[in-house]
Amino acid sequence: MDYKVVGKGVRRADAVAKVTGKAKYTGDIPEKGMLYAKLFRATIGHGYVKSIDTSKAEAMDGVVKVVTYKDVPDIKYPTAGHPYCRDPKHQDCADRKMLSDKVRLYGDEIAAVIATSELTAAKALKLIEVEYEELPVLLDAEEAMKDGTPEIHEGVKNNILAKSGYDVGDIDIEEAFARADHIVEGVYETAPVQHCHMENHIAYAYMDSRDRIVVVTSTQIPHICRRILAQSMDLPMGRFRVIKPVIGGGFGAKQDVVLEPVVAFLTTQVDGRPVMLDLQREECMAWTRTRHGVKFHIKTGVSKEGRFLARQARIISTNGAYASHGHSIAAKESTEFFRFYPAELATKCDAYTVYTNMATAGAMRGYGVPQVAFAMESHADDIAKALNMNPVEIREKNMIKEGSTDPRTGVTFHTCKLTECIDIAKKHIDYDRKREEYAEQAGDVRRGVGLAIFGYGSGTWPVSLEIGGARITMNQDGSVQLFMGATEIGQGAETVFSQMAAETIGLPYEYVTIETTNDTDISPFDTGAYASRQSYVSGQAVKKAAFEVREKVLERAGSRFDMKPEDLDIVDANIVRKKDGVALTDLADVALDSYYCTKTACTISSDVTSLVETNALSFGCTAAEVEVDLKTGKVDILNIISVHDSGKILNRTTAEGQVHGGMSMSVGMALAEVMLYDPRTGKPRNNNLLDYKMPTMMDTPHWDVEFVESHDQTGPYGNKSLGEPPAISPAPALRNAIFNATGIAFNSTPMNPQNLFERFKEEGLV
Amino acid sequence: MDYKVVGKGVRRADAVAKVTGKAKYTGDIPEKGMLYAKLFRATIGHGYVKSIDTSKAEAMDGVVKVVTYKDVPDIKYPTAGHPYCRDPKHQDCADRKMLSDKVRLYGDEIAAVIATSELTAAKALKLIEVEYEELPVLLDAEEAMKDGTPEIHEGVKNNILAKSGYDVGDIDIEEAFARADHIVEGVYETAPVQHCHMENHIAYAYMDSRDRIVVVTSTQIPHICRRILAQSMDLPMGRFRVIKPVIGGGFGAKQDVVLEPVVAFLTTQVDGRPVMLDLQREECMAWTRTRHGVKFHIKTGVSKEGRFLARQARIISTNGAYASHGHSIAAKESTEFFRFYPAELATKCDAYTVYTNMATAGAMRGYGVPQVAFAMESHADDIAKALNMNPVEIREKNMIKEGSTDPRTGVTFHTCKLTECIDIAKKHIDYDRKREEYAEQAGDVRRGVGLAIFGYGSGTWPVSLEIGGARITMNQDGSVQLFMGATEIGQGAETVFSQMAAETIGLPYEYVTIETTNDTDISPFDTGAYASRQSYVSGQAVKKAAFEVREKVLERAGSRFDMKPEDLDIVDANIVRKKDGVALTDLADVALDSYYCTKTACTISSDVTSLVETNALSFGCTAAEVEVDLKTGKVDILNIISVHDSGKILNRTTAEGQVHGGMSMSVGMALAEVMLYDPRTGKPRNNNLLDYKMPTMMDTPHWDVEFVESHDQTGPYGNKSLGEPPAISPAPALRNAIFNATGIAFNSTPMNPQNLFERFKEEGLV
Repeated sequence: MDYKVVGKGVRRADAVAKVTGKAKYTGDIPEKGMLYAKLFRATIGHGYVKSIDTSKAEAMDGVVKVVTYKDVPDIKYPTAGHPYCRDPKHQDCADRKMLSDKVRLYGDEIAAVIATSELTAAKALKLIEVEYEELPVLLDAEEAMKDGTPEIHEGVKNNILAKSGYDVGDIDIEEAFARADHIVEGVYETAPVQHCHMENHIAYAYMDSRDRIVVVTSTQIPHICRRILAQSMDLPMGRFRVIKPVIGGGFGAKQDVVLEPVVAFLTTQVDGRPVMLDLQREECMAWTRTRHGVKFHIKTGVSKEGRFLARQARIISTNGAYASHGHSIAAKESTEFFRFYPAELATKCDAYTVYTNMATAGAMRGYGVPQVAFAMESHADDIAKALNMNPVEIREKNMIKEGSTDPRTGVTFHTCKLTECIDIAKKHIDYDRKREEYAEQAGDVRRGVGLAIFGYGSGTWPVSLEIGGARITMNQDGSVQLFMGATEIGQGAETVFSQMAAETIGLPYEYVTIETTNDTDISPFDTGAYASRQSYVSGQAVKKAAFEVREKVLERAGSRFDMKPEDLDIVDANIVRKKDGVALTDLADVALDSYYCTKTACTISSDVTSLVETNALSFGCTAAEVEVDLKTGKVDILNIISVHDSGKILNRTTAEGQVHGGMSMSVGMALAEVMLYDPRTGKPRNNNLLDYKMPTMMDTPHWDVEFVESHDQTGPYGNKSLGEPPAISPAPALRNAIFNATGIAFNSTPMNPQNLFERFKEEGLV
Repeated sequence: MDYKVVGKGVRRADAVAKVTGKAKYTGDIPEKGMLYAKLFRATIGHGYVKSIDTSKAEAMDGVVKVVTYKDVPDIKYPTAGHPYCRDPKHQDCADRKMLSDKVRLYGDEIAAVIATSELTAAKALKLIEVEYEELPVLLDAEEAMKDGTPEIHEGVKNNILAKSGYDVGDIDIEEAFARADHIVEGVYETAPVQHCHMENHIAYAYMDSRDRIVVVTSTQIPHICRRILAQSMDLPMGRFRVIKPVIGGGFGAKQDVVLEPVVAFLTTQVDGRPVMLDLQREECMAWTRTRHGVKFHIKTGVSKEGRFLARQARIISTNGAYASHGHSIAAKESTEFFRFYPAELATKCDAYTVYTNMATAGAMRGYGVPQVAFAMESHADDIAKALNMNPVEIREKNMIKEGSTDPRTGVTFHTCKLTECIDIAKKHIDYDRKREEYAEQAGDVRRGVGLAIFGYGSGTWPVSLEIGGARITMNQDGSVQLFMGATEIGQGAETVFSQMAAETIGLPYEYVTIETTNDTDISPFDTGAYASRQSYVSGQAVKKAAFEVREKVLERAGSRFDMKPEDLDIVDANIVRKKDGVALTDLADVALDSYYCTKTACTISSDVTSLVETNALSFGCTAAEVEVDLKTGKVDILNIISVHDSGKILNRTTAEGQVHGGMSMSVGMALAEVMLYDPRTGKPRNNNLLDYKMPTMMDTPHWDVEFVESHDQTGPYGNKSLGEPPAISPAPALRNAIFNATGIAFNSTPMNPQNLFERFKEEGLV
């Protein structure tokens, strides 16, 4: 397809706003008479509040109100940012109360202080006195699953929030294993990590003059948030208005409704005055959401040619204290396990999501796939090793192919440029030659190369509803206002939506002004930013709305020039006669007429909903070369490239930015990041950016990025997902590079200096 | 028509917001880093600035920038809040520059100071030094029209901004007068008055990160304002965004673009930082807009039976320093003169709009009709007196009739309940009996009764474009969000729009939430609040949008219940089977399904433009009984009633409020209000609420209000205009009552104690 605006590396729509400080985040909005709330958090990891005394806090100057678990609605609500499902069987687990007397994790929220300043509220917290009855703290999922352990949520047996599984294939799984020439088994485990978005969780709420509750919040999912607010207070949805200003990142942590029900409730306790909850980084890291730590036991039956005959996985997902996204992340891991390397004979999988007394795990960029890909791609290299084959050959023999159809959903994947991606990545690091070269090394500093591949969907169909909304209004000068229900959270959505609108109408990019603030009262409906869905799903809505606007313009222009609309085109905001390319007039002329012609005035606009019933897999490959210092356990990345097939690349510049960020996140997961807990109390040990080791600029190698563009027929502009994919394959590529360098298979993250050094010592390498 | 919500006296949509202080006006919006501007105003009434020295002001601490007439764009722009017309011949007069070195009135704007506080800006103004060259000050229109007077606007001969006229009838006007049995002549004059809306003119502007200029302003006409901003800076309209928060009244003064171009320009001079212009009451009264003082010379040829055979008027409208609405107010007076009392043989009219060195006159509630009605209705009583007939009889013989067609426009007036209105009013004050009784009185305190009638259009068609826009979105609970381009300015528009939406969809009133803030980036297009057009014109858009929503709901419900949509109804937010009235489900169920059904989800919304090509006249009558104290010149209103035919009354409670306010305004014009100027310098003498005598609660009688409801087929719900009509007939009714009481025909406003007393002395009554 020959696009004029789509595909160009135009400047981000929000670039200037962000670098000049004009962008208004939730915390930047001045609100007269704002009150500040602070949450009182439990100082035990598991147990019950026996008594609470807030009288001293209430007596403090500047304290407006103290509320406790006794005051909040006796309603359990779900927090996951999923579209609502009318079928109760598929609704999210509702296990959360705003404030609780059952303490399910260290820091669980028991009470809230509302004061005239943040400082006063913080001081008042210290005056609250609580007596607890403690229960044993359960931090390990397999421990928590054992019979006889206390139930973190009453009635949830063995703390298993959910279990799912499948056993599919032409023959029984055991028989399939029996037919294999080799059986390779491995246990792989990823550690819980945190999103570490720049902007912490922040929200405030007030009541308007109609007693509607307005919540201004840093969320990825304003419309879903509105629905959950209604559930949390048992009020009609129309009573809530959710406003999302500019937001400083979410990565899935804000695909959960964390602060909003509390602030919404708190404002009702102070006559509708605005109440702000602005979490500290320490709170955000420990008490919002994390990425699940997941343990995979994988077993593969392989033919001597390296074909996967039978595959089996047992997945145990450590969910922390509350359900959040519940079992859907483990379920996605199962799906990916089945789909990415289809076994010839049989596949079996059992997945468990287990409550523990630690931070609630929820959505995070990749939604389980970084974990399962770490396991599968580590396992692929383990198989290659066992069979003494080239790891790429093993992959290419077994991986998903273009045109294949998922037998469980019936979805066909029309484009798959995995082979091309692999070729570029391999070539970039001279994989085959170096792999051989690095196979046998001595010395304290060793090098290795590794590679990993992945696939990732675009949106959630057919698991969930996929709906997008867009509204376009043409101004008097031919420029347009674009409104999306979809949310910009830093990923560049506004930019590519603007490009799409310009492309389809026939405008220069600069003619499109997109509204940054989402407001459930004003914005079209869209479920929000998650599942890398927006450019794919919401993009369909932009295209539809833009097409409608284009049609209306051409109809008006046609009647003006006594021509058929189909004989006219809009090119660079001019009305052009197709047959000879002559510009008959400019768009501004037609637009002005649409506003002011006394006989025919009708402003040109469109307001559409788009229901999307397709999905497409994006693919990619990361190849890396590392240098491992055995004596320090430090891994240096010498060279790393990610190559993506995300269909048509909508904006090369912002797409590269996405990949850089994703690679950084995956490198952090691989080499450094882990949430640590005191094993006895469950108290978080490193919930701050000093002790939690995120990669910084000092740790960042040069990121090489390539795209193999395909044009997927299901994407609005041939595009497929790109938001999450970059965060998947770097971690296993690094693991495999370290494996190549040292001969040691590290099956757990993080592969940080301490863990590596201890293992090297254990293995006698140092 | 049997309505369920329309016609009910539901509580105003903005009632709670306003009484609790939650309503946010322009001045209530906190904006970080706000700068404050003050305008430097001329201290002569007419002349030129020879030199200006701003150096001392610029040097002052806290002064950010001083700009003068030398710095502003060299562009003359129009300020009238009229829809744009593409035909240059019908465009508004562009005679205004943001700042000017030609001083056209005392207080004309020469420079502006931007400072970090209002106080600093005010202090800095005093440091600006100006030398002037003075010209004679022209305050009287007839003087200003004389040959040889200086031109206030260069090239405008005899200061006549515009002149129009007609001479229509079957025979020549002079011949028509010759056929008359009586000729009655009179000169009637109304004084310039000010709107005195509660909220002064206020606006601020800033530049967003895309260099678009955002203007937040107390305006009746956000979309028109946007267009004029573009003209004033010669930039594309899409570069501007106009936001109208809650506004505290306008009455036409804010149907003009007064502050916006200046603040928009000023923000560009300080790198887009927000700049506020918040006028003082003194500035608002003297230097924004006033109601035209108009002089009418009327001559009527009457048959012995009292039929009007020939009518002639010469109208001289004193326009002040700038064109503003230009000649259109005088033109409306001419139209009304022709239309309301159609002459049997011939009608002639000449209307002049003349520049003078006083405050610019613009739109004000009634748009010329209060002036012409004062003249015509005074004149009607003068004719009755001359013929010794009952004044009502004279009116009934000659006034416009139901079903008549305006020969100049072809518009037919389908409803006219004037006779019924008169009957009620007469009866209320026992008009006929008291009129006889009061005809001959002695003593210092005398009583009288008077009556006056009027007609007033609904919107501006066919003179101008009439277009309205509405958008409705149904929430998940069946409640709806309503967005209008039309503006609530205190008149209750939001309330009746909400009623209309509820009525047509089939909802309780409470189910409708209307968005208060108009934002040209977000709101549908509509030209705004003026000409009593909104419930009539914009109401059509609400109805159309609501109907679309209703259709969509019924279609979804029909497919759910396997029924035809036309066999279903929406009653009180339930889906009802028409044949037996059984509620099949509630609307919330259908709404929820429209959001979340994975197979058919499509949110229910509508976004419509409505072009209206009809008009309708509202009618009414005021009757009053007064007591006049000859020795003090004081007039007490003993009894006053206004009776209106405004078609269907949409909300009895708010309609009464409208009438009360209009009556008060007209009483003020009749008995007290006048803008005074120093005759030599043109300096305003009473531009404050102490010296300018508005009626207060102390002067307010009990307002009786009645409605004669008609159902006009052209109105969306049978309704016709009601916003301006109440401000028309009380003034002449009072004049006629004073006439009845004292035998003295007061032909000028205000009939304040001073003017009355002087005249009584002159006439030998005291």
